Amino acid sequence: MEFCILFGGASFEHEISIVSAIALKEVLGNKIKHFIFLDENHHFYLIEEANMHSKYFVRIKEKKLSPLTLTQKGLLKNTLLGSKVIELPLVINLVHGNDGEDGKLASLLEFYRIAFIGPRIEASVLSYNKHLTKLYAKSLGIKTLDYVLLNENHHANALDFIKPKISFPLIVKPSNAGSSLGVSVVREESELAYALDGAFEYSKEVLVEPFINGVKEYNLAGCKVKEKNQEHFCLSYVEEPSKQDFLDFEQKYLDFSRTKAPKATISNALGERLKESFKKLYNDLFNGSIIRCDFFVIDDEVYINEINPIPGSLANYLFDDFKKVLECLAQSLPKTPKIHTNNSYLLQIQKNK
Amino acid sequence: MEFCILFGGASFEHEISIVSAIALKEVLGNKIKHFIFLDENHHFYLIEEANMHSKYFVRIKEKKLSPLTLTQKGLLKNTLLGSKVIELPLVINLVHGNDGEDGKLASLLEFYRIAFIGPRIEASVLSYNKHLTKLYAKSLGIKTLDYVLLNENHHANALDFIKPKISFPLIVKPSNAGSSLGVSVVREESELAYALDGAFEYSKEVLVEPFINGVKEYNLAGCKVKEKNQEHFCLSYVEEPSKQDFLDFEQKYLDFSRTKAPKATISNALGERLKESFKKLYNDLFNGSIIRCDFFVIDDEVYINEINPIPGSLANYLFDDFKKVLECLAQSLPKTPKIHTNNSYLLQIQKNK
Repeated sequence: MEFCILFGGASFEHEISIVSAIALKEVLGNKIKHFIFLDENHHFYLIEEANMHSKYFVRIKEKKLSPLTLTQKGLLKNTLLGSKVIELPLVINLVHGNDGEDGKLASLLEFYRIAFIGPRIEASVLSYNKHLTKLYAKSLGIKTLDYVLLNENHHANALDFIKPKISFPLIVKPSNAGSSLGVSVVREESELAYALDGAFEYSKEVLVEPFINGVKEYNLAGCKVKEKNQEHFCLSYVEEPSKQDFLDFEQKYLDFSRTKAPKATISNALGERLKESFKKLYNDLFNGSIIRCDFFVIDDEVYINEINPIPGSLANYLFDDFKKVLECLAQSLPKTPKIHTNNSYLLQIQKNK
Repeated sequence: MEFCILFGGASFEHEISIVSAIALKEVLGNKIKHFIFLDENHHFYLIEEANMHSKYFVRIKEKKLSPLTLTQKGLLKNTLLGSKVIELPLVINLVHGNDGEDGKLASLLEFYRIAFIGPRIEASVLSYNKHLTKLYAKSLGIKTLDYVLLNENHHANALDFIKPKISFPLIVKPSNAGSSLGVSVVREESELAYALDGAFEYSKEVLVEPFINGVKEYNLAGCKVKEKNQEHFCLSYVEEPSKQDFLDFEQKYLDFSRTKAPKATISNALGERLKESFKKLYNDLFNGSIIRCDFFVIDDEVYINEINPIPGSLANYLFDDFKKVLECLAQSLPKTPKIHTNNSYLLQIQKNK
């Protein structure tokens, strides 16, 4: 089975995606047919495997690559002899943040009927927007932290909205942004305005939550697959991410090429409850994707903090046999039925005339 | 100001969209620069104005039209002398149902930075999925009817889920589908299986709600615009749709070319409450689109039934001066900031090597 890796994107996590793709190259090796790079102007390019290293991408704007256009089943290439389509086998959507996780690339790939691993449109929207994630989780009976949702009109008098619901210290985060971009811990009132500025840079809505010092944090990744017509979950082991107050952007990614993450030492019972929560959240919504759920455990209760539908290098380091997981998932992708149009209604209008 | 009308789509409402486009042609006349037809295979075509009538579309599959590809700022046309881009001024997304209202076309238009009137991705997903509409409305303090959400696994024992929560008569509707497709009223248990079959044909999830005979129904359309840097709403008058039990697909559209809908005779107080509910639901989420909210009034309480983010022919018949509304909206479209990438992180990796 061959894969294409789609990476880059007009995203604040553009570079993370490049590193993600390079990391997956190491894992998947010769199973990768095409590396498809999406630049900030939304042009697609094929990158030769030999160029898949960070040095090349530092200078990529100087390269003279031919832009390609996405079309039915693949990429359209214009040559002197006319245009031809480079057909794409299964695409792995590895664009983090904007474009990749907000539903845009899922839309384009579905529209052109290109098979892909990654969240579908609804799954993208519900996980990319952290406020919607809360509404979704709540509807499934999964707990989330209390919060206040602010928009830019609330900026000046944010305290009036926050104070009745949440006390300091707080955590301020953009409602729509991946990684830990624009996230900050606010210990007292005087720090609030600056933190809000930082968060509103990334998103039109901002969430304010209580900040719980030393909260227990556990990550679990996985996907639902179908084998012999039976659905089951392939789940990773539970990771207890290392952290200071919280993981900021650089901490999270400068050790991105790690091979193994620290396994959490937790009771079997808690492990089972995390798995049950994962499965409820995955639902049918995330079919076709490998997601990572980041949980908190507070007073022995499980809370979902965020759902990451395209985790860095697909969290491959959390799985014992990642290649097998990917191959099973590739056989279990949701099918989009083709809708055929007919003219019965227009014919009726004609008849009535 | 010139508009392009994008219509058709691989949608169960494909033909409705064609009729919608023909209706808008009458209203906007020479303000329309291009009619862009999207077929069931997701090819785009330009249709000459003279061909914008139902007879032409009955036989459109026999026409030899050249397919175009969507790309940056417009449509890519391949000619013998190479390819050229037909630039598109403001596009009105008039594709109902799948493609148009599920976020796919919003994604494509945003991706290629083509300005458009219509719901953005999040707005599409939250209004297209009727279950999500309920979660969204509830989070704003707007009432919706009680419901049970079923997926295909519940089909056989659906009654076990329904009975504890809702009593007959019921209304069964696909969670994802426009118009009244797949919707039916179920008066007794024996009719349920057939109704569920019909609904699951259109959607993987089905909503069951109480059916309230003779419920008062009111529709209100509108949009938020910005004039002299002040935001305000342009709202239509309130329509009381004529109905039997409920409007099915044909009833709703066979009189589609109506010019004026029946104005509701309601108190000013109720009119104001409908407007307030509309504005809360419109929020910032629906910026850039003309939506129609279909409300119920039960025991003097306002309930949202559904949010239609691309109503038939944009509900132009509900506005006193539709052209002006459209022109104001065209000046008030949400801006998508361009995200520029830099290589600071990759440079750091290089340095650390």
